[in-house]
Amino acid sequence: MMFRRLALIGTGLIGGSLALALRERGEVGEVVGYSRRLDTRLAAERLGLIDRPADSIAEAVAGADLVFVATPVKAMDAVLGELAACLPGDALVTDGGSVKGAVVERARAHLSAGQLARFVPGHPIAGRERSGPEAATADLYRGHRVILTPIEENRAEDVARIEAMWQATGARIERLEVAHHDHVLAATSHLPHAAAYAMVSALARLAERYEVFRYAAGGFRDFTRIASSDPVMWRDICLDNRDEILVMLDHYRAELDCLRDMLESADGEKIEHYFHEAKAVRDALYPVAQANGANPVSEADETGR
Amino acid sequence: MMFRRLALIGTGLIGGSLALALRERGEVGEVVGYSRRLDTRLAAERLGLIDRPADSIAEAVAGADLVFVATPVKAMDAVLGELAACLPGDALVTDGGSVKGAVVERARAHLSAGQLARFVPGHPIAGRERSGPEAATADLYRGHRVILTPIEENRAEDVARIEAMWQATGARIERLEVAHHDHVLAATSHLPHAAAYAMVSALARLAERYEVFRYAAGGFRDFTRIASSDPVMWRDICLDNRDEILVMLDHYRAELDCLRDMLESADGEKIEHYFHEAKAVRDALYPVAQANGANPVSEADETGR
Repeated sequence: MMFRRLALIGTGLIGGSLALALRERGEVGEVVGYSRRLDTRLAAERLGLIDRPADSIAEAVAGADLVFVATPVKAMDAVLGELAACLPGDALVTDGGSVKGAVVERARAHLSAGQLARFVPGHPIAGRERSGPEAATADLYRGHRVILTPIEENRAEDVARIEAMWQATGARIERLEVAHHDHVLAATSHLPHAAAYAMVSALARLAERYEVFRYAAGGFRDFTRIASSDPVMWRDICLDNRDEILVMLDHYRAELDCLRDMLESADGEKIEHYFHEAKAVRDALYPVAQANGANPVSEADETGR
Repeated sequence: MMFRRLALIGTGLIGGSLALALRERGEVGEVVGYSRRLDTRLAAERLGLIDRPADSIAEAVAGADLVFVATPVKAMDAVLGELAACLPGDALVTDGGSVKGAVVERARAHLSAGQLARFVPGHPIAGRERSGPEAATADLYRGHRVILTPIEENRAEDVARIEAMWQATGARIERLEVAHHDHVLAATSHLPHAAAYAMVSALARLAERYEVFRYAAGGFRDFTRIASSDPVMWRDICLDNRDEILVMLDHYRAELDCLRDMLESADGEKIEHYFHEAKAVRDALYPVAQANGANPVSEADETGR
């Protein structure tokens, strides 16, 4: 058994699924859970995600040797502030936030040097359409990537323990620099979400939008699926990773300008070449994704915590 | 039986599926098919999509009272040119092209006044991952939209016959002005395809693209699915509907600029509102799409003929 007692701060899909996976593997003794909302805590207990609910972060982490912060990124500032006052001396802490730079900044602002050393930031890239305790499953992370972004303060053996913990869930662990994680996710997740919201907005502004949308078919549906993601989560991700997203937005705008020029000049050869290159890259990406054992994914995938 | 003999110009997914659907409903007597490639014609015969292959367009349409042009839009110029020389006097003609303005222009350039009057342009919005005769099915059009774009030269009863023909396949028929069709499709299909190709290209240009793509998850996969569409078809659609696509591209770029400004000024309230509005529109679109009985769709949906 890796951990004596797991404290979940946030008992929804992400936290609950980790608890189920570790329990199934016998890697955790007791699971105590705290959520801001009472009904979420009680649902988590009723569903067997946690052994008992706690009425405060302090009560949840008392006696815990592992703390998993699985709240929306926006809430982590307050959570880390409270943790600083009640974290047991031997407890390891990790999180599931979609943006690492901002989380590490908040950790540095709130945690003591000793606490910071035991905080190993992470980001499980997994999700489902539904969220909340009811959506939690023991195999949510199986075959999915979990990116750990250790900080210089971390001790190698603590990072190794968090990595082993995630390996027990069947996830594929990667390590990235904090800034590099935010750069990569801005490109593969944050930019596409922003672009999808903008696409829907562009059409919604058309005078004949109601009619236009009647003819939206599969391509449009797939393309805009991520525009159904939670607006508050994505607002927070955009604010927390603003600089990287702005850079990627500018790259994307430059591509659209370049494509617009080819179209303007009706350069069929260039357009075909451009589409051909993009298709080749995208098609090549697929077998890779399969080989990586990525589960079938949903619009809620990487919708951000 | 609606038609004595159907001539398919193009015996792939789109043409073959129409033939199967009409035959299943007993709405067509004989089906003769021509494709530029001999193996496509022979495959269509072997698969029972057509009763016999023809070695030329002239041979295919001889004695036909319905001609369905189901070739890529680019080929339609040559096809319409040949049809002008061999079209039986009583034959109705329709097509499956993704862009109607350019097709009608070519029809006007090639067909006689009498032939033009019997050409009722159309666009079935349906497709599959796979194409070619092997992919044809009798129910491809069931529950999908078929947009007819009658021209002023058409006689009401001829348009009604083409409409009844498509109704026999289980499709939901709409009528739009030619220019309006191209405007609507530029918004719901052509722009998203261009934007998806540009998104893949933007990431592919990053120095660390190989690493970036390793972290691409479900959101990115859905968002870029249509970037796997056929580059030649999409080159032709872009060229044929250039003006409308340019207008939509500018709308889209304006949205991205607007989102970029909110992000630049870190205006969380505006960003949340923007995302919220887009999500509301997109979520509302779904039940509509379901009520319309649209089949589950694929990356090849509306990839253009």
